[in-house]
Amino acid sequence: MCKGKFITLEGAEGVGKSTQAQSLCAWLQAQGIEVIYTREPGGTPCAERLRALLLSQHEGEDWLPLSELLLMFSARHQHLEHKIIPALKQGTWVVCDRFTDATYAYQGGGRGLDQAVIKQLETWVHAHQQPDLTLWLDLAPEIAHQRLQTRGTSDRFERQDQTFFARVRAIYAQRAEMFPERIHRIAAQGTQAEVAARIQACLRPYLLDEEAI
Amino acid sequence: MCKGKFITLEGAEGVGKSTQAQSLCAWLQAQGIEVIYTREPGGTPCAERLRALLLSQHEGEDWLPLSELLLMFSARHQHLEHKIIPALKQGTWVVCDRFTDATYAYQGGGRGLDQAVIKQLETWVHAHQQPDLTLWLDLAPEIAHQRLQTRGTSDRFERQDQTFFARVRAIYAQRAEMFPERIHRIAAQGTQAEVAARIQACLRPYLLDEEAI
Repeated sequence: MCKGKFITLEGAEGVGKSTQAQSLCAWLQAQGIEVIYTREPGGTPCAERLRALLLSQHEGEDWLPLSELLLMFSARHQHLEHKIIPALKQGTWVVCDRFTDATYAYQGGGRGLDQAVIKQLETWVHAHQQPDLTLWLDLAPEIAHQRLQTRGTSDRFERQDQTFFARVRAIYAQRAEMFPERIHRIAAQGTQAEVAARIQACLRPYLLDEEAI
Repeated sequence: MCKGKFITLEGAEGVGKSTQAQSLCAWLQAQGIEVIYTREPGGTPCAERLRALLLSQHEGEDWLPLSELLLMFSARHQHLEHKIIPALKQGTWVVCDRFTDATYAYQGGGRGLDQAVIKQLETWVHAHQQPDLTLWLDLAPEIAHQRLQTRGTSDRFERQDQTFFARVRAIYAQRAEMFPERIHRIAAQGTQAEVAARIQACLRPYLLDEEAI
Protein backbone atom coordinates (compact mmCIF):
# COMPACT_ATOMS: atom_id res chain seq x y z
CA MET A 1 0.00 0.00 0.00
CA CYS A 2 1.39 3.41 -0.91
CA LYS A 3 1.89 6.05 1.73
CA GLY A 4 -0.50 9.02 1.81
CA LYS A 5 0.70 12.55 1.17
CA PHE A 6 1.04 15.03 4.03
CA ILE A 7 -0.04 18.52 2.94
CA THR A 8 0.06 21.53 5.24
CA LEU A 9 -1.55 24.96 4.76
CA GLU A 10 0.16 27.97 6.23
CA GLY A 11 -0.36 31.71 6.40
CA ALA A 12 -1.42 34.51 8.71
CA GLU A 13 -4.91 35.08 10.12
CA GLY A 14 -7.44 36.29 7.55
CA VAL A 15 -5.82 34.72 4.45
CA GLY A 16 -8.63 32.16 4.01
CA LYS A 17 -6.55 29.17 5.07
CA SER A 18 -9.23 27.11 6.82
CA THR A 19 -11.72 27.63 3.97
CA GLN A 20 -9.13 26.60 1.40
CA ALA A 21 -8.04 23.57 3.43
CA GLN A 22 -11.59 22.26 3.48
CA SER A 23 -12.19 23.03 -0.17
CA LEU A 24 -8.91 21.25 -1.03
CA CYS A 25 -10.12 18.14 0.81
CA ALA A 26 -13.40 18.14 -1.13
CA TRP A 27 -11.49 18.48 -4.42
CA LEU A 28 -9.06 15.66 -3.53
CA GLN A 29 -11.98 13.39 -2.64
CA ALA A 30 -13.53 14.22 -6.03
CA GLN A 31 -10.27 12.94 -7.57
CA GLY A 32 -10.81 9.61 -5.76
CA ILE A 33 -8.27 10.25 -2.99
CA GLU A 34 -8.97 9.29 0.60
CA VAL A 35 -8.13 12.33 2.72
CA ILE A 36 -8.65 13.67 6.22
CA TYR A 37 -8.71 17.32 7.28
CA THR A 38 -7.07 18.25 10.56
CA ARG A 39 -5.59 21.31 12.26
CA GLU A 40 -2.91 22.55 14.64
CA PRO A 41 -2.72 23.09 17.45
CA GLY A 42 -5.23 20.28 17.90
CA GLY A 43 -6.38 17.26 15.95
CA THR A 44 -6.68 14.74 18.82
CA PRO A 45 -8.64 14.95 22.12
CA CYS A 46 -5.46 15.74 24.14
CA ALA A 47 -4.16 18.24 21.58
CA GLU A 48 -7.55 19.98 21.25
CA ARG A 49 -7.53 20.52 25.02
CA LEU A 50 -4.13 22.18 24.69
CA ARG A 51 -5.50 24.30 21.83
CA ALA A 52 -8.33 25.54 24.05
CA LEU A 53 -5.80 26.47 26.76
CA LEU A 54 -3.48 28.20 24.28
CA LEU A 55 -6.11 30.45 22.73
CA SER A 56 -7.02 32.08 26.06
CA GLN A 57 -5.58 33.72 29.13
CA HIS A 58 -6.41 32.13 32.50
CA GLU A 59 -7.43 34.31 35.45
CA GLY A 60 -5.39 37.13 33.95
CA GLU A 61 -2.24 34.99 33.49
CA ASP A 62 -0.92 34.92 29.93
CA TRP A 63 1.25 32.18 28.41
CA LEU A 64 4.93 33.08 28.21
CA PRO A 65 6.49 32.58 24.74
CA LEU A 66 8.57 29.54 25.76
CA SER A 67 5.60 27.93 27.55
CA GLU A 68 3.49 28.46 24.43
CA LEU A 69 6.22 26.86 22.28
CA LEU A 70 6.44 23.77 24.51
CA LEU A 71 2.65 23.36 24.44
CA MET A 72 2.64 23.60 20.64
CA PHE A 73 5.16 20.77 20.33
CA SER A 74 3.43 18.68 23.00
CA ALA A 75 0.17 18.95 21.03
CA ARG A 76 2.06 18.23 17.79
CA HIS A 77 3.64 15.06 19.18
CA GLN A 78 0.19 13.71 20.15
CA HIS A 79 -1.22 14.73 16.77
CA LEU A 80 1.56 13.11 14.74
CA GLU A 81 1.71 9.84 16.67
CA HIS A 82 -2.01 9.32 17.21
CA LYS A 83 -3.49 10.73 14.00
CA ILE A 84 -1.23 11.95 11.18
CA ILE A 85 1.32 9.12 10.95
CA PRO A 86 -1.27 6.31 11.34
CA ALA A 87 -3.38 7.90 8.54
CA LEU A 88 -0.40 8.31 6.18
CA LYS A 89 0.66 4.70 6.80
CA GLN A 90 -2.81 3.52 5.73
CA GLY A 91 -2.45 5.44 2.47
CA THR A 92 -4.79 8.28 3.53
CA TRP A 93 -3.74 11.80 2.61
CA VAL A 94 -3.66 14.36 5.42
CA VAL A 95 -4.49 18.05 4.88
CA CYS A 96 -3.41 19.97 7.98
CA ASP A 97 -4.26 23.60 8.77
CA ARG A 98 -0.88 24.83 10.14
CA PHE A 99 2.18 22.83 11.22
CA THR A 100 5.78 23.50 12.26
CA ASP A 101 6.33 26.32 9.76
CA ALA A 102 3.67 28.20 11.73
CA THR A 103 5.72 27.67 14.90
CA TYR A 104 8.78 29.23 13.27
CA ALA A 105 6.61 32.11 12.01
CA TYR A 106 4.53 32.78 15.16
CA GLN A 107 6.69 31.70 18.10
CA GLY A 108 9.97 32.45 16.31
CA GLY A 109 9.12 35.53 14.21
CA GLY A 110 6.12 36.84 16.14
CA ARG A 111 7.21 36.16 19.72
CA GLY A 112 10.94 36.43 19.05
CA LEU A 113 12.03 32.99 20.33
CA ASP A 114 15.38 31.59 19.20
CA GLN A 115 14.98 29.49 16.02
CA ALA A 116 17.61 27.04 17.39
CA VAL A 117 15.24 26.16 20.25
CA ILE A 118 12.41 25.53 17.78
CA LYS A 119 14.75 23.45 15.61
CA GLN A 120 15.72 21.27 18.61
CA LEU A 121 12.07 20.61 19.44
CA GLU A 122 11.32 19.86 15.78
CA THR A 123 14.15 17.31 15.78
CA TRP A 124 12.82 15.59 18.91
CA VAL A 125 9.21 15.52 17.69
CA HIS A 126 9.42 14.92 13.93
CA ALA A 127 12.96 14.69 12.58
CA HIS A 128 11.78 12.06 10.07
CA GLN A 129 8.28 13.28 9.26
CA GLN A 130 8.11 16.48 7.26
CA PRO A 131 5.17 17.58 5.08
CA ASP A 132 5.34 16.47 1.44
CA LEU A 133 3.94 19.82 0.36
CA THR A 134 3.28 23.11 2.18
CA LEU A 135 0.95 25.71 0.67
CA TRP A 136 1.75 29.15 2.05
CA LEU A 137 -1.27 31.40 1.45
CA ASP A 138 0.19 34.87 1.28
CA LEU A 139 -1.74 38.12 1.34
CA ALA A 140 -0.76 41.75 1.90
CA PRO A 141 -1.14 42.31 5.69
CA GLU A 142 -3.55 45.24 5.14
CA ILE A 143 -6.02 43.00 3.28
CA ALA A 144 -5.71 40.17 5.83
CA HIS A 145 -6.32 42.72 8.58
CA GLN A 146 -9.45 44.06 6.85
CA ARG A 147 -10.82 40.52 6.51
CA LEU A 148 -10.21 39.87 10.22
CA GLN A 149 -12.09 43.04 11.17
CA THR A 150 -15.27 41.56 9.71
CA ARG A 151 -15.11 38.59 12.11
CA GLY A 152 -16.97 39.00 15.40
CA THR A 153 -14.46 37.58 17.90
CA SER A 154 -10.70 37.24 18.19
CA ASP A 155 -8.29 34.96 20.10
CA ARG A 156 -4.85 35.63 21.71
CA PHE A 157 -3.13 35.45 18.32
CA GLU A 158 -5.64 37.45 16.31
CA ARG A 159 -5.33 40.32 18.79
CA GLN A 160 -1.62 40.86 17.99
CA ASP A 161 -0.60 44.08 16.26
CA GLN A 162 0.55 44.74 12.69
CA THR A 163 4.28 44.55 13.47
CA PHE A 164 3.73 41.05 14.89
CA PHE A 165 2.13 39.94 11.61
CA ALA A 166 4.90 41.58 9.58
CA ARG A 167 7.43 39.43 11.50
CA VAL A 168 5.28 36.32 10.96
CA ARG A 169 5.15 36.97 7.22
CA ALA A 170 8.90 37.60 7.01
CA ILE A 171 9.61 34.16 8.51
CA TYR A 172 7.18 32.45 6.13
CA ALA A 173 9.00 34.16 3.25
CA GLN A 174 12.38 33.11 4.65
CA ARG A 175 11.28 29.49 4.96
CA ALA A 176 9.79 29.44 1.46
CA GLU A 177 13.26 30.43 0.22
CA MET A 178 14.97 27.81 2.40
CA PHE A 179 12.68 24.97 1.28
CA PRO A 180 11.64 25.82 -2.29
CA GLU A 181 10.85 22.17 -3.15
CA ARG A 182 8.40 21.79 -0.28
CA ILE A 183 6.90 25.26 0.37
CA HIS A 184 4.87 26.86 -2.41
CA ARG A 185 3.70 30.45 -2.10
CA ILE A 186 0.07 30.85 -3.19
CA ALA A 187 -1.17 34.38 -3.84
CA ALA A 188 -4.25 34.58 -1.61
CA GLN A 189 -5.98 37.63 -3.09
CA GLY A 190 -9.01 37.23 -5.35
CA THR A 191 -12.09 35.07 -4.92
CA GLN A 192 -12.14 31.76 -3.07
CA ALA A 193 -12.52 29.95 -6.40
CA GLU A 194 -9.48 31.74 -7.86
CA VAL A 195 -7.31 30.79 -4.87
CA ALA A 196 -8.64 27.22 -4.97
CA ALA A 197 -7.67 26.97 -8.64
CA ARG A 198 -4.10 28.07 -7.81
CA ILE A 199 -3.90 25.41 -5.10
CA GLN A 200 -5.24 22.71 -7.40
CA ALA A 201 -2.64 23.61 -10.01
CA CYS A 202 0.04 23.10 -7.36
CA LEU A 203 -1.38 19.69 -6.47
CA ARG A 204 -1.53 18.19 -9.98
CA PRO A 205 2.04 16.82 -10.02
CA TYR A 206 1.30 14.97 -6.76
CA LEU A 207 -1.83 13.44 -8.27
CA LEU A 208 0.18 12.26 -11.28
CA ASP A 209 2.60 10.60 -8.81
CA GLU A 210 -0.36 8.76 -7.37
CA GLU A 211 -1.56 7.52 -10.77
CA ALA A 212 1.93 6.40 -11.72
CA ILE A 213 2.16 4.02 -8.71
CA MET B 1 16.50 42.80 51.15
CA CYS B 2 17.78 39.22 51.32
CA LYS B 3 16.57 36.63 48.85
CA GLY B 4 14.20 33.93 50.08
CA LYS B 5 15.24 30.28 50.11
CA PHE B 6 13.81 27.87 47.56
CA ILE B 7 13.10 24.46 49.14
CA THR B 8 11.72 21.52 47.20
CA LEU B 9 10.27 18.26 48.53
CA GLU B 10 10.67 15.13 46.47
CA GLY B 11 9.78 11.48 46.70
CA ALA B 12 7.43 8.84 45.33
CA GLU B 13 3.68 8.66 45.94
CA GLY B 14 2.72 7.63 49.48
CA VAL B 15 5.84 8.94 51.27
CA GLY B 16 3.92 11.74 53.02
CA LYS B 17 5.44 14.55 50.96
CA SER B 18 2.45 16.91 50.78
CA THR B 19 1.76 16.56 54.52
CA GLN B 20 5.41 17.25 55.36
CA ALA B 21 5.55 20.23 52.98
CA GLN B 22 2.63 21.87 54.74
CA SER B 23 3.94 21.06 58.19
CA LEU B 24 7.35 22.49 57.19
CA CYS B 25 5.66 25.75 56.15
CA ALA B 26 3.88 26.02 59.50
CA TRP B 27 7.16 25.40 61.35
CA LEU B 28 9.04 28.00 59.26
CA GLN B 29 6.30 30.55 59.94
CA ALA B 30 6.65 29.79 63.66
CA GLN B 31 10.36 30.71 63.26
CA GLY B 32 9.27 34.11 61.89
CA ILE B 33 9.95 33.31 58.25
CA GLU B 34 7.60 34.44 55.49
CA VAL B 35 6.93 31.40 53.34
CA ILE B 36 4.56 30.20 50.62
CA TYR B 37 3.60 26.62 49.85
CA THR B 38 3.22 25.62 46.22
CA ARG B 39 3.32 22.48 44.08
CA GLU B 40 4.25 21.05 40.70
CA PRO B 41 2.91 20.58 38.20
CA GLY B 42 0.80 23.62 39.02
CA GLY B 43 1.11 26.70 41.20
CA THR B 44 -0.37 29.30 38.82
CA PRO B 45 -3.75 29.37 37.01
CA CYS B 46 -2.15 28.34 33.67
CA ALA B 47 0.02 25.65 35.26
CA GLU B 48 -2.85 24.24 37.33
CA ARG B 49 -4.83 23.81 34.11
CA LEU B 50 -1.93 21.82 32.69
CA ARG B 51 -1.82 19.75 35.90
CA ALA B 52 -5.49 18.86 35.49
CA LEU B 53 -4.83 17.77 31.88
CA LEU B 54 -1.73 15.77 32.86
CA LEU B 55 -3.38 13.74 35.59
CA SER B 56 -6.05 12.29 33.27
CA GLN B 57 -6.56 10.59 29.93
CA HIS B 58 -8.82 12.35 27.44
CA GLU B 59 -11.43 10.37 25.48
CA GLY B 60 -9.19 7.31 25.80
CA GLU B 61 -6.07 9.12 24.53
CA ASP B 62 -3.10 8.97 26.89
CA TRP B 63 -0.21 11.45 27.00
CA LEU B 64 2.95 10.20 25.31
CA PRO B 65 6.11 10.46 27.47
CA LEU B 66 7.65 13.31 25.44
CA SER B 67 4.35 15.25 25.39
CA GLU B 68 4.11 14.84 29.16
CA LEU B 69 7.68 16.11 29.55
CA LEU B 70 7.02 19.23 27.46
CA LEU B 71 3.86 20.00 29.46
CA MET B 72 5.79 19.66 32.72
CA PHE B 73 8.36 22.23 31.62
CA SER B 74 5.72 24.54 30.17
CA ALA B 75 3.94 24.53 33.53
CA ARG B 76 7.29 24.95 35.33
CA HIS B 77 8.21 28.01 33.24
CA GLN B 78 4.90 29.71 34.14
CA HIS B 79 5.33 28.74 37.79
CA LEU B 80 8.90 30.04 38.06
CA GLU B 81 8.36 33.33 36.24
CA HIS B 82 4.96 34.21 37.68
CA LYS B 83 5.22 32.89 41.24
CA ILE B 84 8.47 31.35 42.52
CA ILE B 85 11.03 33.93 41.33
CA PRO B 86 8.90 36.99 42.27
CA ALA B 87 8.40 35.52 45.80
CA LEU B 88 12.12 34.76 46.29
CA LYS B 89 13.03 38.26 45.12
CA GLN B 90 10.75 39.73 47.79
CA GLY B 91 12.56 37.69 50.45
CA THR B 92 9.75 35.13 50.82
CA TRP B 93 10.78 31.49 51.15
CA VAL B 94 9.15 29.01 48.77
CA VAL B 95 8.36 25.41 49.74
CA CYS B 96 7.50 23.49 46.60
CA ASP B 97 6.03 19.98 46.45
CA ARG B 98 8.09 18.47 43.58
CA PHE B 99 10.32 20.20 41.02
CA THR B 100 12.79 19.22 38.28
CA ASP B 101 14.29 16.29 40.23
CA ALA B 102 10.80 14.73 39.94
CA THR B 103 10.98 15.16 36.17
CA TYR B 104 14.27 13.26 36.02
CA ALA B 105 12.79 10.57 38.32
CA TYR B 106 9.35 10.18 36.69
CA GLN B 107 9.76 11.13 33.03
CA GLY B 108 13.42 10.01 32.90
CA GLY B 109 13.48 6.98 35.22
CA GLY B 110 9.80 6.02 35.14
CA ARG B 111 8.95 6.70 31.49
CA GLY B 112 12.46 6.05 30.15
CA LEU B 113 13.04 9.40 28.41
CA ASP B 114 16.62 10.44 27.61
CA GLN B 115 18.12 12.49 30.48
CA ALA B 116 19.88 14.69 27.91
CA VAL B 117 16.48 15.88 26.64
CA ILE B 118 15.40 16.72 30.20
CA LYS B 119 18.71 18.50 30.79
CA GLN B 120 18.20 20.65 27.67
CA LEU B 121 14.73 21.70 28.82
CA GLU B 122 16.04 22.41 32.33
CA THR B 123 18.70 24.67 30.80
CA TRP B 124 16.12 26.60 28.77
CA VAL B 125 13.69 26.99 31.66
CA HIS B 126 15.84 27.46 34.76
CA ALA B 127 19.59 27.30 34.12
CA HIS B 128 20.13 29.96 36.79
CA GLN B 129 17.46 29.08 39.31
CA GLN B 130 18.03 25.84 41.21
CA PRO B 131 16.52 24.98 44.61
CA ASP B 132 18.66 25.95 47.61
CA LEU B 133 17.70 22.72 49.34
CA THR B 134 15.89 19.57 48.22
CA LEU B 135 14.42 17.17 50.77
CA TRP B 136 14.07 13.70 49.28
CA LEU B 137 11.59 11.73 51.39
CA ASP B 138 12.60 8.14 50.89
CA LEU B 139 10.60 5.10 51.91
CA ALA B 140 10.81 1.41 51.00
CA PRO B 141 8.49 1.00 47.98
CA GLU B 142 6.43 -1.72 49.75
CA ILE B 143 5.51 0.69 52.57
CA ALA B 144 4.72 3.54 50.16
CA HIS B 145 2.53 1.14 48.18
CA GLN B 146 0.63 0.06 51.32
CA ARG B 147 -0.01 3.71 52.22
CA LEU B 148 -1.34 4.41 48.70
CA GLN B 149 -3.75 1.46 48.93
CA THR B 150 -5.54 3.20 51.79
CA ARG B 151 -6.37 6.21 49.57
CA GLY B 152 -9.68 6.05 47.73
CA THR B 153 -8.71 7.28 44.24
CA SER B 154 -5.61 7.29 42.06
CA ASP B 155 -4.33 9.38 39.11
CA ARG B 156 -2.30 8.42 35.99
CA PHE B 157 0.94 8.35 38.01
CA GLU B 158 -0.34 6.55 41.07
CA ARG B 159 -1.64 3.73 38.85
CA GLN B 160 1.88 2.81 37.64
CA ASP B 161 3.32 -0.55 38.69
CA GLN B 162 6.07 -1.41 41.17
CA THR B 163 8.87 -1.55 38.58
CA PHE B 164 8.01 2.04 37.55
CA PHE B 165 8.44 3.20 41.16
CA ALA B 166 11.68 1.23 41.52
CA ARG B 167 13.06 3.19 38.52
CA VAL B 168 11.80 6.48 40.02
CA ARG B 169 13.55 5.74 43.30
CA ALA B 170 16.79 4.74 41.55
CA ILE B 171 16.96 8.14 39.83
CA TYR B 172 16.28 10.03 43.06
CA ALA B 173 19.14 8.05 44.65
CA GLN B 174 21.40 8.81 41.68
CA ARG B 175 20.65 12.53 41.88
CA ALA B 176 21.19 12.62 45.64
CA GLU B 177 24.70 11.26 44.92
CA MET B 178 25.28 13.77 42.13
CA PHE B 179 24.19 16.79 44.20
CA PRO B 180 25.06 15.95 47.82
CA GLU B 181 25.16 19.63 48.84
CA ARG B 182 21.64 20.31 47.64
CA ILE B 183 19.71 17.03 47.96
CA HIS B 184 19.25 15.55 51.44
CA ARG B 185 17.74 12.10 51.86
CA ILE B 186 15.18 12.02 54.66
CA ALA B 187 14.12 8.61 55.96
CA ALA B 188 10.33 8.76 55.65
CA GLN B 189 9.32 5.83 57.86
CA GLY B 190 7.95 6.47 61.35
CA THR B 191 5.32 8.93 62.51
CA GLN B 192 4.63 12.30 60.87
CA ALA B 193 6.21 14.02 63.88
CA GLU B 194 9.38 11.92 63.59
CA VAL B 195 9.77 12.73 59.89
CA ALA B 196 9.03 16.42 60.56
CA ALA B 197 11.78 16.46 63.21
CA ARG B 198 14.28 15.04 60.69
CA ILE B 199 13.30 17.75 58.20
CA GLN B 200 13.62 20.51 60.79
CA ALA B 201 17.10 19.29 61.71
CA CYS B 202 18.06 19.62 58.05
CA LEU B 203 16.71 23.17 57.92
CA ARG B 204 18.53 24.57 60.97
CA PRO B 205 21.72 25.60 59.13
CA TYR B 206 19.58 27.60 56.68
CA LEU B 207 17.84 29.38 59.54
CA LEU B 208 21.21 30.27 61.05
CA ASP B 209 22.16 31.75 57.67
CA GLU B 210 19.07 33.90 57.90
CA GLU B 211 19.91 35.14 61.40
CA ALA B 212 23.47 35.88 60.38
CA ILE B 213 22.32 38.33 57.68
